[in-house]
Amino acid sequence: VSQPTAIVPPATGRLGAPAAGPIASVAWDRGAAVIIDQRQLPDTLVLRRLSAVEDVVEAIRTLAVRGAPAIGIAGAYGVVMGLLAAGDVSRASALAELDRLVSRIGTARPTAVNLAVAVDRVALAVRGTRGDARDMAAAALVEARAIHDQDRASCEAIGRAGLELLGGARRLLTHCNTGRLATGGDGTALAIVYAAHAAGRLEEVLVDETRPLLQGARLTAWELAQAEIPHRVLVDGAAGLAMARGMVDAVLVGCDRVAADGDTANKVGTYGLAVLAARHGLPFYVAGPLTSFDAATPDGDGIVVEERAADEVRAFGGTSTTPPGAPVWNPAFDVTPAELITAFVTDAGVLRPPYGPAIAAAIEDAGRG
Amino acid sequence: VSQPTAIVPPATGRLGAPAAGPIASVAWDRGAAVIIDQRQLPDTLVLRRLSAVEDVVEAIRTLAVRGAPAIGIAGAYGVVMGLLAAGDVSRASALAELDRLVSRIGTARPTAVNLAVAVDRVALAVRGTRGDARDMAAAALVEARAIHDQDRASCEAIGRAGLELLGGARRLLTHCNTGRLATGGDGTALAIVYAAHAAGRLEEVLVDETRPLLQGARLTAWELAQAEIPHRVLVDGAAGLAMARGMVDAVLVGCDRVAADGDTANKVGTYGLAVLAARHGLPFYVAGPLTSFDAATPDGDGIVVEERAADEVRAFGGTSTTPPGAPVWNPAFDVTPAELITAFVTDAGVLRPPYGPAIAAAIEDAGRG
Repeated sequence: VSQPTAIVPPATGRLGAPAAGPIASVAWDRGAAVIIDQRQLPDTLVLRRLSAVEDVVEAIRTLAVRGAPAIGIAGAYGVVMGLLAAGDVSRASALAELDRLVSRIGTARPTAVNLAVAVDRVALAVRGTRGDARDMAAAALVEARAIHDQDRASCEAIGRAGLELLGGARRLLTHCNTGRLATGGDGTALAIVYAAHAAGRLEEVLVDETRPLLQGARLTAWELAQAEIPHRVLVDGAAGLAMARGMVDAVLVGCDRVAADGDTANKVGTYGLAVLAARHGLPFYVAGPLTSFDAATPDGDGIVVEERAADEVRAFGGTSTTPPGAPVWNPAFDVTPAELITAFVTDAGVLRPPYGPAIAAAIEDAGRG
Repeated sequence: VSQPTAIVPPATGRLGAPAAGPIASVAWDRGAAVIIDQRQLPDTLVLRRLSAVEDVVEAIRTLAVRGAPAIGIAGAYGVVMGLLAAGDVSRASALAELDRLVSRIGTARPTAVNLAVAVDRVALAVRGTRGDARDMAAAALVEARAIHDQDRASCEAIGRAGLELLGGARRLLTHCNTGRLATGGDGTALAIVYAAHAAGRLEEVLVDETRPLLQGARLTAWELAQAEIPHRVLVDGAAGLAMARGMVDAVLVGCDRVAADGDTANKVGTYGLAVLAARHGLPFYVAGPLTSFDAATPDGDGIVVEERAADEVRAFGGTSTTPPGAPVWNPAFDVTPAELITAFVTDAGVLRPPYGPAIAAAIEDAGRG
């Protein structure tokens, strides 16, 4: 990944969606994507300028940029960069380069469907463009910006729909990071938190730290502190006790890929939360834009769960957490069966069981719209 | 805590129960307790000589020595040290000192019942002794050594009973550390693992890393590697996926305090594992000596769950895991309701539901024995 272009003390750099504040998780800037390097939070707020396709792929692989919607946006900008870098070539050469870009960027991570969807969408727009390589790159940028803008709007819609759904639930538990860092707007599950706080209807957010990469402790706690939203961080294993003690009114999580029947891949640990929520009779809400729904995958068995490097579990910072070379199993996601999900909160409204028809109808309506 | 007396490279220092190998979690040595400093594993195997009561209390509080049976043994030796330090005082002075020691050491940590039980048992032996302060200290040492020896025998009995109970279960999942580091012998839940491995009936142990202090990743993985037992470390949130994928035949955990009805306090995260095991129809076994059973506490509501410092969650090694000063909730234990426990494996055999009568009978039999 390229060198950082700016290091902003976290205390002064305020995080916000592009429309709301100065620093976005991903921003397009004169031929490059500027991202917040999420690996370095919360110690340092580093902005990193990704000006080559390889930078984008590396940033996605290493989770410098992460969150299903955010990697979709970054991937879309990556395709633009690749076409710009190809220069003033023939239309056939540009289309061949486009195919390579779609494959290279679209497969940087396997589980979240948004990445492949965004990259394919840019490719479709490019292929439908008449004109030369420059026109094609321009069309790619228009489409990438549209994806980014639509994600921001999706976050707003999710926040609104989720706020209504919450009813009197004021103490929320969440997992991983699903906020401004993970999306092009206010987030998915966290957009609902922001909306509830703005409406004066939030008491506390319990934030699972979310091992191994601690997106909850490092990123969600940082976001919520910036927004002055009351929260406490807990280890992932403490969620059960929190529910047993009556400290939680509802569980809110995001999603990386929702199958056609509602089975949902999300950050590892989500499934256990859903099972606990069911035991305690708590609503378990999954928030995400329709771009996270994958009608082509019939159910959870068809979702590829990314397994990541053992070293993510073996050390944190410079300190070993296991004996050297300890054998490790490190799945990044798990799959929550649809039956454990109380409702989906999407940019097309709230979806209720049975999810097969509800998801199909929402996707069909969106296609018509 | 006192300065380390020996630093042994983990690769050469082999861990073992006193009867089985050169290094024990706790050993009495000429007026002091020598412990393995468990905070420094797996990087360094440090033996620490605790020669004053304050050293013992500090070692228990900071988890330099940990595991319900091991802190019972260390606490018992602490009482001996305190009486030895009091010197050649009057019998009345020695008894007054004894009361102070019982209170000071017995409350160093609240959740595990073994500590208070062991300290009380030494006190009872001392009070029953005729003779001067020296005789009283000698009686304390005899009793502390008996507690230590009995724990070693308890571990063997648990291993034997558990091996029979396992039947064809060859792939086990465990949480925290319940082995040679946690006890005076081979362990509680891990004694069963050692027994299954020795019998050629073990395929793999999945080891929950066990946040926040990583007793699974740091200690259990180290113990199992030393014993050449096949294992993999996973983050606590991955246990649900492991069960959903059919990678687990049974779950084995230890216990810090079992109430009279079978409700069980153990390392935070245990309750979530029990709920997941029930969903997947997997046996959920709790292993521990009868000294971990507390007939005076009717059910789980009466168990005090220790809440520890926020900094345990906020940083690991020298690296922050949260923003500075992030609000944290850090319960060290949770309570698993008896209904989720398939069986208890104790030094008095296997206990099956209904647990109220089974536990009462086992304790009564042990008292008669």
